[in-house]
Amino acid sequence: MTADDILHVINTARSFKEISARPIKKVPTLRGKTIINFFFEPSTRTRLSFEVAAKRMSADTFNISASTSSATKGETLIDTARNLQAMAPDVIIIRHSSSGAPQLLAKNVDAAIINAGDGTHEHPSQGLLDIMTILEHKGSLEGLKIAIVGDIAHSRVAGSDIIGFNRLGANVHLAGPATFMPADADQLGVTVCEDVRDAVRDADVVMALRIQKERQKDPLIPSLREYSTFYGINNKMLQLAKDDVVVMHPGPINRGVEMSPDVADGKRSVILEQVTNGVAVRMALLYLVMGGEKTDDEQGGR
Amino acid sequence: MTADDILHVINTARSFKEISARPIKKVPTLRGKTIINFFFEPSTRTRLSFEVAAKRMSADTFNISASTSSATKGETLIDTARNLQAMAPDVIIIRHSSSGAPQLLAKNVDAAIINAGDGTHEHPSQGLLDIMTILEHKGSLEGLKIAIVGDIAHSRVAGSDIIGFNRLGANVHLAGPATFMPADADQLGVTVCEDVRDAVRDADVVMALRIQKERQKDPLIPSLREYSTFYGINNKMLQLAKDDVVVMHPGPINRGVEMSPDVADGKRSVILEQVTNGVAVRMALLYLVMGGEKTDDEQGGR
Amino acid sequence: MTADDILHVINTARSFKEISARPIKKVPTLRGKTIINFFFEPSTRTRLSFEVAAKRMSADTFNISASTSSATKGETLIDTARNLQAMAPDVIIIRHSSSGAPQLLAKNVDAAIINAGDGTHEHPSQGLLDIMTILEHKGSLEGLKIAIVGDIAHSRVAGSDIIGFNRLGANVHLAGPATFMPADADQLGVTVCEDVRDAVRDADVVMALRIQKERQKDPLIPSLREYSTFYGINNKMLQLAKDDVVVMHPGPINRGVEMSPDVADGKRSVILEQVTNGVAVRMALLYLVMGGEKTDDEQGGR
Repeated sequence: MTADDILHVINTARSFKEISARPIKKVPTLRGKTIINFFFEPSTRTRLSFEVAAKRMSADTFNISASTSSATKGETLIDTARNLQAMAPDVIIIRHSSSGAPQLLAKNVDAAIINAGDGTHEHPSQGLLDIMTILEHKGSLEGLKIAIVGDIAHSRVAGSDIIGFNRLGANVHLAGPATFMPADADQLGVTVCEDVRDAVRDADVVMALRIQKERQKDPLIPSLREYSTFYGINNKMLQLAKDDVVVMHPGPINRGVEMSPDVADGKRSVILEQVTNGVAVRMALLYLVMGGEKTDDEQGGR
Repeated sequence: MTADDILHVINTARSFKEISARPIKKVPTLRGKTIINFFFEPSTRTRLSFEVAAKRMSADTFNISASTSSATKGETLIDTARNLQAMAPDVIIIRHSSSGAPQLLAKNVDAAIINAGDGTHEHPSQGLLDIMTILEHKGSLEGLKIAIVGDIAHSRVAGSDIIGFNRLGANVHLAGPATFMPADADQLGVTVCEDVRDAVRDADVVMALRIQKERQKDPLIPSLREYSTFYGINNKMLQLAKDDVVVMHPGPINRGVEMSPDVADGKRSVILEQVTNGVAVRMALLYLVMGGEKTDDEQGGR
Repeated sequence: MTADDILHVINTARSFKEISARPIKKVPTLRGKTIINFFFEPSTRTRLSFEVAAKRMSADTFNISASTSSATKGETLIDTARNLQAMAPDVIIIRHSSSGAPQLLAKNVDAAIINAGDGTHEHPSQGLLDIMTILEHKGSLEGLKIAIVGDIAHSRVAGSDIIGFNRLGANVHLAGPATFMPADADQLGVTVCEDVRDAVRDADVVMALRIQKERQKDPLIPSLREYSTFYGINNKMLQLAKDDVVVMHPGPINRGVEMSPDVADGKRSVILEQVTNGVAVRMALLYLVMGGEKTDDEQGGR
């Protein structure tokens, strides 16, 4: 996606956002369309966000989870996808633990594929909703200093955010334990900070990533207490940032680990706005992958 | 809820009940509304009953179960609820193993919260459907003798029933093994009967509660055989009650344990009417928590 | 079902098939109807196929799976079904591991029951979609040689296919390891071939069944390698069949076991057409069990 593509999605999302604020949160835009949520990993928020987006546009939605899918019967992913395709869906939204699974699907089925997170690779709709949220507060990403703090290497959110933020002209600074930094950091067009305070200092945006507790067995990974002490975003740390800094988190939050509760619930936090924008971005994605070309004139008519 | 509140819900439920008997079981009343079923415990009947109620009123429904929720990722209940709230639901229906979880949610989100059962505490929609069912047969609860037999202490159904039955003027008698009687029974405005026959004698209503087989490991709890012998409602026991007694059970039934099959399927049983009324009561609850103010005039116009 | 009944369903299915090819894949035929998917065994494709069929006809659909149902609480199947019935569903679609479960339900509830696969017994909607697929390619089943290869004895698909194919006049040939042949084969009106090549030779249709890997522990069952060598359908084997043979498989495929990838993806394969026809057949079944009587004139008006 070019910078223009990104902005096109977000402008479309902005025009859809108000639908969720109406008394009747529903437009007929995608009536009679078939949208399959195909989730190989559990996810409350992303699956629900897509399902809410789809139903608010009147699409028919279907949920398949890994535990009930034919994957347990030895079918290949491509065969499962082709079988889904034979039921004539318009969009398949896929969350998969293997990086690249959505690309594999896209090559093998006619339905539009939306990547809802693949392995440690990408999570594009999250990247877009993060950009939308920053734009609502800053007007532009051009020249902004954005600090991303945490387990960058294993975060598909960071993967998509870095690409998107860079493309729109932001200066991305990464911070976290050395074992959490991506091996190819020098090719990402980012600044890696050994001291998290260097990343947060004068930042316009501070985004904390979730610490995956399930990875705590790894001896190279700091304990939650160590992590919280050195990398947790608290109010003292936040004083280094610009006065109008916005604090973000893709959720779910481990309160007191990657972020103190007063920051998460504080006046600089836009974490719940991210969730709200997620529905709008996913409405826009569903609309656009199904061939919608939104013009400003259409807004009133929906 | 006052007695008037209870009767208002039930009158509304009565006017909605006939919708489920129509060839086209659907009214547009809640079109474009977003209703989330948030179930931390498995439940076929309650979840389905709410979902049927919601869809018959044309609402968009979303199911989240504990196993797929962020709870497994260490998120707090309040954070999960706030995240749901950010997607602009109108109602969140919650079933939770912790008593008080719905109250916690109600304090932290704007959406209306409906308690679909919390721990051993309450199950208000079950209480309402039980009252509705009794009213259909008896016209009023004033002065009725209602026997509730079984594990009162751990039953959220009993918790809600006792409050509601009392508020509408019934005389509630409890019976069951001593270990099943609530510790605060003397403050509940009920009569505790050592002999189950004293509770059933001349009763207008006999409600048997489900024995939770999973609690059978507790040495203080009678075996299923003992329970059935001393507390099971069979035809002989039922002869002690009034001729027009109605027999109730919140389900699922352990046939031959808390109730003999000939009673469960007999002519005094209104168990399946309870289920039917459950859909109507839940339609009414959804309608009312979303601000609906039903008048008699509206009935025809829907 | 008589031959005429079968053809009536399939003619109805044909007229519904084009709905799935429309830009707006939805007709109001079953608006306001309540359809419950009651699946005691996991199944992506069958559950999804019925749900797609139901939603394309505007019915309200509800999914219940065994893990969340009251079955885990000791309720009998009949009680569960009666409870569902009390919520006034129009159709209950049941998949169950016990042969005969759908018949048990049908005797105890008013809702129409559709068998979506019971134990090793039958899978009627699969049988119908197989017939529909063959008819699309051959015009008639009268006199066709149809080879069914694999674990006939434990396949409910084979159970329904054999009945349906016979009723429409086909000559059914079975092949597979001796332990996979049904004990009552001589009463089924089929030819059992010791050598799979005798079944495939000059066949109009070759249907391979799925090998259930979970049954591989049985010492009487050939290994996957042995099975593939002696019974797998590959291009060399297929040269024995008629030039215009169609190759079928109910899915999910174990590629390289019961069928080689070049056959599964080859020009004689109609496997994905089976899936597409599955949606159409299920639309027809839902329509017909709810009392629909489709005439040719109606086709345009829907």
